[in-house]
Amino acid sequence: MDQGQTVDIGMLQAALADVVAPWVRELGLQVVAARPGEVELTLPVAPGLVHGGGVLCGQAMMAAADTAMVLAVMTRLGGFKPMTTVQLQTSFLKPVPGNDGQARVLARVLRLGKSLVFGEILLHNARGDLAAHATTTYALL
Amino acid sequence: MDQGQTVDIGMLQAALADVVAPWVRELGLQVVAARPGEVELTLPVAPGLVHGGGVLCGQAMMAAADTAMVLAVMTRLGGFKPMTTVQLQTSFLKPVPGNDGQARVLARVLRLGKSLVFGEILLHNARGDLAAHATTTYALL
Amino acid sequence: MDQGQTVDIGMLQAALADVVAPWVRELGLQVVAARPGEVELTLPVAPGLVHGGGVLCGQAMMAAADTAMVLAVMTRLGGFKPMTTVQLQTSFLKPVPGNDGQARVLARVLRLGKSLVFGEILLHNARGDLAAHATTTYALL
Amino acid sequence: MDQGQTVDIGMLQAALADVVAPWVRELGLQVVAARPGEVELTLPVAPGLVHGGGVLCGQAMMAAADTAMVLAVMTRLGGFKPMTTVQLQTSFLKPVPGNDGQARVLARVLRLGKSLVFGEILLHNARGDLAAHATTTYALL
Repeated sequence: MDQGQTVDIGMLQAALADVVAPWVRELGLQVVAARPGEVELTLPVAPGLVHGGGVLCGQAMMAAADTAMVLAVMTRLGGFKPMTTVQLQTSFLKPVPGNDGQARVLARVLRLGKSLVFGEILLHNARGDLAAHATTTYALL
Repeated sequence: MDQGQTVDIGMLQAALADVVAPWVRELGLQVVAARPGEVELTLPVAPGLVHGGGVLCGQAMMAAADTAMVLAVMTRLGGFKPMTTVQLQTSFLKPVPGNDGQARVLARVLRLGKSLVFGEILLHNARGDLAAHATTTYALL
Repeated sequence: MDQGQTVDIGMLQAALADVVAPWVRELGLQVVAARPGEVELTLPVAPGLVHGGGVLCGQAMMAAADTAMVLAVMTRLGGFKPMTTVQLQTSFLKPVPGNDGQARVLARVLRLGKSLVFGEILLHNARGDLAAHATTTYALL
Repeated sequence: MDQGQTVDIGMLQAALADVVAPWVRELGLQVVAARPGEVELTLPVAPGLVHGGGVLCGQAMMAAADTAMVLAVMTRLGGFKPMTTVQLQTSFLKPVPGNDGQARVLARVLRLGKSLVFGEILLHNARGDLAAHATTTYALL
């Protein structure tokens, strides 16, 4: 990983607006940091994302994970290229309280192959505890 | 599985409105069939769920899968009880075109233990092809 | 799936001997049925596969699942071609007692794409209960 | 994590001999490091673990991952207690050549709950590349 290279956060944030489905855009994900192979986003724990149990719904966590990984792959490809999620496995370790302000989503490319990309995503609650952990495979088209 | 028993579809549809986060409710999932251990829902392929590539976004498929499984577990418990998703793994086999009308989501309990529930979810496109396949573990609280 | 086509069980059993690592061959897997896209094998619950808790070890179940899927893919390709497991997710639903005689392993191709293959594997204990359920992605090389 | 605490490697190595199925013991796993919540093992790439493609078989990697996690959980529990694998998902990033000497397996507890334990396992080849990555859930019995 060319750790020294800089990544254009604005380009990633623009991709969120261009590429992602409108329903996913409602999550309000914000790119806060990026370097080659890694992006960090914030996910506001909005009332609309909280289920009857009073915690951030798992559906939002999975959606954030999948979306964050697209951006992480882009940091390695130097921009958006068509790709598709092959599989995504999420483990839910700890609930994120509905009044938690925002969660942080860290997506990391573990391996960029010619046609397949492997990655992992960590979602931390506001106190820094690991709330969800996902691993995923993408296919470059 | 007590295949002969009937399950109240209205009760399941009401649970969707009561329990699920508002953002997930936007998916417009409709319960169309249910029997003990199994539910079938429709997922309208609305423009808001279609991403830049012109197909139903994977985030909506994962969210539908997770939601459908809650209802499938309810058919075995006889109503809603607190539960939490432990993990959910989704494989994306085939894209669902953005003009596909609606997808069908079938969630099935594979095993209901004392504290853990295992299930699988199949998402078919309008032509009946398997588009996504998920397996999941829930914990009863 | 060309359900009517016959598949040569002897060819599959020979592939087990040729392709699979010697340590995996020790499992004693036997092909008992095959049709295009699907194979069924028996896994003897030998004392060497039973762990301190008195049940069939999960490692043997995962190994059997992975191996069975190679054969299931072969039934669709008409013979062995180089392929590699991209990911395999196994859920363990129920223990298989150490005196259970043999387990049955059913592997099924869910989708055969140009470069990726998706499948699922069911492992049943001697009484026919689902003991383990796996989903997997393979890459054709 | 009480990073400062020491963990008895001999106790873990003895558990490998006592608890693990004889077939899994054949892998020749050796505990080389341990601290609370984390263990590192070596997996010799023996000829018996190499499949027809000339690389370490995935079955051995999954088996090593599952076994390593039992030990990692033990480092947090202070000894062996009955537990069972609920699910294990492995991604295979890179082949391990059959003449690679030994792979290194790092298992780490991500969260130890009252009844569920979450963990991840990294398997590196002799050059230090990530070859396989697994995530898993265990149930304490």
